[in-house]
Amino acid sequence: MEQLVTKAIQDEYPDDFAWCYGCGRLNESGHHFRTGWQGDQTVTLFTPEPEHTAIPGFVYGGVMASLIDCHGTGSAALALHRKNGHEVGDGSEPPRFVTASLHVDFLKPTPQGIELKAVGKITEIHPKKWQVDTEVYAGDTLCARGQVVAVVMPSTFKA
Amino acid sequence: MEQLVTKAIQDEYPDDFAWCYGCGRLNESGHHFRTGWQGDQTVTLFTPEPEHTAIPGFVYGGVMASLIDCHGTGSAALALHRKNGHEVGDGSEPPRFVTASLHVDFLKPTPQGIELKAVGKITEIHPKKWQVDTEVYAGDTLCARGQVVAVVMPSTFKA
Repeated sequence: MEQLVTKAIQDEYPDDFAWCYGCGRLNESGHHFRTGWQGDQTVTLFTPEPEHTAIPGFVYGGVMASLIDCHGTGSAALALHRKNGHEVGDGSEPPRFVTASLHVDFLKPTPQGIELKAVGKITEIHPKKWQVDTEVYAGDTLCARGQVVAVVMPSTFKA
Repeated sequence: MEQLVTKAIQDEYPDDFAWCYGCGRLNESGHHFRTGWQGDQTVTLFTPEPEHTAIPGFVYGGVMASLIDCHGTGSAALALHRKNGHEVGDGSEPPRFVTASLHVDFLKPTPQGIELKAVGKITEIHPKKWQVDTEVYAGDTLCARGQVVAVVMPSTFKA
């Protein structure tokens, strides 16, 4: 079943915050991860490039970690945006999160050439600190579990 | 002080295992992380590319996670190779590890344009399972702490 993320939080980040190598729409070299709601869960779809290999035939763990990372910050932004009374596409600027910690358990080798689906469940730890528990599937196979603790971007990140 | 990793474990991986996007010498698009001994610690040096950005001026977390990941598997391979009586460059084929789990705590925004230094301490958990605790520095600033649990590559990875 083909799936699409039609309304992604990354489409709405202000231009200054849209250069992320993982999820920035303005970073020409990046992965362009896009994260949206699917019911009360969040979803990011991504098909790794042929060069994103660990051992030939299997996806590189660092790219899995990158997917979980940006899926986490994007999911947290979606959740806080909704809590603030907004939805993607209503013209309001979403909050921007950064990653405090990232954990990945690699459960099975992830086959290449298949679209990956990251599915996230979000928990508010504190108004500025959210936890996102993510499962990454290749088809029906659960390949990795991840956890991101994301915090609202601190002023130290403002260049 | 300029530093170099003169003898890296990744230089010795068999060709079939040298395609990793993070540390494979044969992957033209990859990061080419190289990991060697420095006393009883391990070191990987890496200067991120300009496109490896999170917010302009700061390094993307997924690239930090990738560095910690391959530094971890490379460090475990160095340690088991040494335990087996070998050193990089003695003509023997080193063991190859994969990542079971990866954890990263992002302590400070990592500035771009500076060479990063990952420094690892290695603990044997089991003959086939090693833990690598890593600190990533930009100059004198400790930017991230990571932990990798690496296991000797299982046969399920053989394509």
